[in-house]
Amino acid sequence: MSILIKECSIIGREGEWDVRIKDGKIDEIGESLDGDDILDGKGKYLSPGFINTHTHAAMTLLRGYADDLPLDKWLNEKIWPLEGKLTAEDVYWGTKLACLDMIKSGTVAFNDMYFFMDSAAQAVEDMGMKATLCYGFLDMGDEDKLEKEKDSTLKFIKDLEGMDNIKPAVGPHSVYTVSQEGLQWCSELSEKMDIPIHIHIAETEKEINDMEGSVVEHLDRMGLLNKRTIAAHCVWLNKAEIDILAKENVVVSHCPVSNMKLGVGKPMDYRSMREAGVFMSLGTDGCASNNNLDMFEEAKIAAILHKMKGDTTLLPAKETYEMMIRDTLHTGGGAVEEGKSADLILIQKGVPDHQPISDIVYTLNGCAVTDTIIDGEVLMRDREVEGEEEILNKASYHANKLVSEMI
Amino acid sequence: MSILIKECSIIGREGEWDVRIKDGKIDEIGESLDGDDILDGKGKYLSPGFINTHTHAAMTLLRGYADDLPLDKWLNEKIWPLEGKLTAEDVYWGTKLACLDMIKSGTVAFNDMYFFMDSAAQAVEDMGMKATLCYGFLDMGDEDKLEKEKDSTLKFIKDLEGMDNIKPAVGPHSVYTVSQEGLQWCSELSEKMDIPIHIHIAETEKEINDMEGSVVEHLDRMGLLNKRTIAAHCVWLNKAEIDILAKENVVVSHCPVSNMKLGVGKPMDYRSMREAGVFMSLGTDGCASNNNLDMFEEAKIAAILHKMKGDTTLLPAKETYEMMIRDTLHTGGGAVEEGKSADLILIQKGVPDHQPISDIVYTLNGCAVTDTIIDGEVLMRDREVEGEEEILNKASYHANKLVSEMI
Repeated sequence: MSILIKECSIIGREGEWDVRIKDGKIDEIGESLDGDDILDGKGKYLSPGFINTHTHAAMTLLRGYADDLPLDKWLNEKIWPLEGKLTAEDVYWGTKLACLDMIKSGTVAFNDMYFFMDSAAQAVEDMGMKATLCYGFLDMGDEDKLEKEKDSTLKFIKDLEGMDNIKPAVGPHSVYTVSQEGLQWCSELSEKMDIPIHIHIAETEKEINDMEGSVVEHLDRMGLLNKRTIAAHCVWLNKAEIDILAKENVVVSHCPVSNMKLGVGKPMDYRSMREAGVFMSLGTDGCASNNNLDMFEEAKIAAILHKMKGDTTLLPAKETYEMMIRDTLHTGGGAVEEGKSADLILIQKGVPDHQPISDIVYTLNGCAVTDTIIDGEVLMRDREVEGEEEILNKASYHANKLVSEMI
Repeated sequence: MSILIKECSIIGREGEWDVRIKDGKIDEIGESLDGDDILDGKGKYLSPGFINTHTHAAMTLLRGYADDLPLDKWLNEKIWPLEGKLTAEDVYWGTKLACLDMIKSGTVAFNDMYFFMDSAAQAVEDMGMKATLCYGFLDMGDEDKLEKEKDSTLKFIKDLEGMDNIKPAVGPHSVYTVSQEGLQWCSELSEKMDIPIHIHIAETEKEINDMEGSVVEHLDRMGLLNKRTIAAHCVWLNKAEIDILAKENVVVSHCPVSNMKLGVGKPMDYRSMREAGVFMSLGTDGCASNNNLDMFEEAKIAAILHKMKGDTTLLPAKETYEMMIRDTLHTGGGAVEEGKSADLILIQKGVPDHQPISDIVYTLNGCAVTDTIIDGEVLMRDREVEGEEEILNKASYHANKLVSEMI
């Protein structure tokens, strides 16, 4: 059984193409091909699906629950108390809702850190997405907690065995929530098992000020910065620290919407990152600080934010688009080429469509995605996703239940 | 013939309501009302439609034609040469495309400045929208051109006679494109005819630096700052100048997306504007510098941009929403209240929907609008707008024709 996308436009190629998908991969790109299940690509761009490199997916349940508060009040009085009441079932439905939002806005794979991650993994598997998931490791300098976090991390990695499209990562939350012992253990585990590291770095000025010495140098000494690392935020870094990220081949997850909404003080230094040669990608962060998972929006805001100071050539559309599709999660996708994993989206063109990439970055939003294919399966067809109604109802129920417990 | 919206949620009221519309106005808000043409409001917010206070509508034809260039190169080599080739028919279809985009993303009225404004007016009338339109008055210090601009302005104001929903404004482009005589003449005409003034103020640092003395004080001396004035951008102002805008009751059109994309150097000083008591609204600017007309996007970007520096309580969702709906164009709408003009939109709720206004400002985008009613007419029903296909085809043809003439 093959899928055939008829007469679509492919970014970077002239003309209209047929694309056949077989066994989860792009089988052939050509003209007048045949296939079993036909998708009409006329008037649409075929693009690699987007890779969201920093999320806390189940926080969809909290979107709109608390906004516009000072950061400490928001965390201490709103987010953390509510998260204390989360159950495995809440996380399952919250993650399913996140997957639904992502499929509907063209994201095919994401990098997630949260709690009850076995439930999250089940949700991702049930939805047919790809993801790298980690248990959020926070020992807070407490020895008992440290042992518990190690156990939870190891157990979760074991839980994922046999799930082809879901990969485990180790998730030391940050320098201010994980002890030196904890960081070291995470680093060794990542190396031993050859699995990614997902961490928050230099999100706020407080994180930098509260630390003796450099956060980046500290993490580098712990062995936590290397080609397996995805580091979210990276706002409060100096050039020497940015050079370390480049040298160690760390992937930075740039999260401009969350950084702006949570008032972290300034934009990430895109220019210095670029000049140093840091690998960059985009993350939406969780829905409590965004409040959606639309990578079109994240991309546009990144592209215009860095221009604001005056250099309108900084972060042009093409570079932004590359941040949306770069295969930092090693899914085997990331390009419309024969042999690549079929993690693809069809995007309704804007009118006029002078430049496809400008269209995607500056004009359109997630609703322009008509069809989403992950691992060769059509998960959205003409904006319809199977089971959508149930997900909306169940997620809504769990969200309201959580908030009602807070009153 | 009445329209009845059944069981919708109204921002700021508990429960579900029926809303009857008759003779262009909100006739009654109650329970179990009857009416002729029924719209299902279940699961939707009924909101006043959005007011976009700064556009150059026909520039939809140029979206994606040139991005990511230095400002002078963008204007001198791309935008102005192409605008030099515009015909009345181009402007007609470009404006129709803009109206289509606005209707589909919940905007009911807009404040526009461009050329061939009789064609623009015809397009707005044909689409059934409300607008304040002005001919862009630029004499460039040339006496012959000054006389021509006066004639064009007077002719256009006359053209609009008899168009109920389209009001004329006088449009002195800016201090750097209009002579003192020109500014004075515009000011006198606005006062004599009691019509609005639409002007760009302090968009770039260059505008400020090239001027001897204060731009705002200069315009105030010309009589151009008063309660009839809508001033776009207002980025490069000091506190004394902001106080003048407040004292004179000027309406500021804040255009964060355009300001960021064109690299004007810094965000408008929202805090000082707010503290001084300036009336503020939102504008998307033209599509060459945005590149869409989605007021949800403009609102979210405004709300998070001003928080970035650290005060997450600045420009909260409610204040942002007020900037989206405030009736600065005197349409008679702006609120869901009996007797108000029926310029209304239905918005599909997000899931979860803990806080309606947060949902609108932070989570949703223009595609969440299901139905748009302007002056009591249903212009979009379940996302369908009459004549959409033709507009897309014709606008696309005119856009491609223009660009092909540039090669």
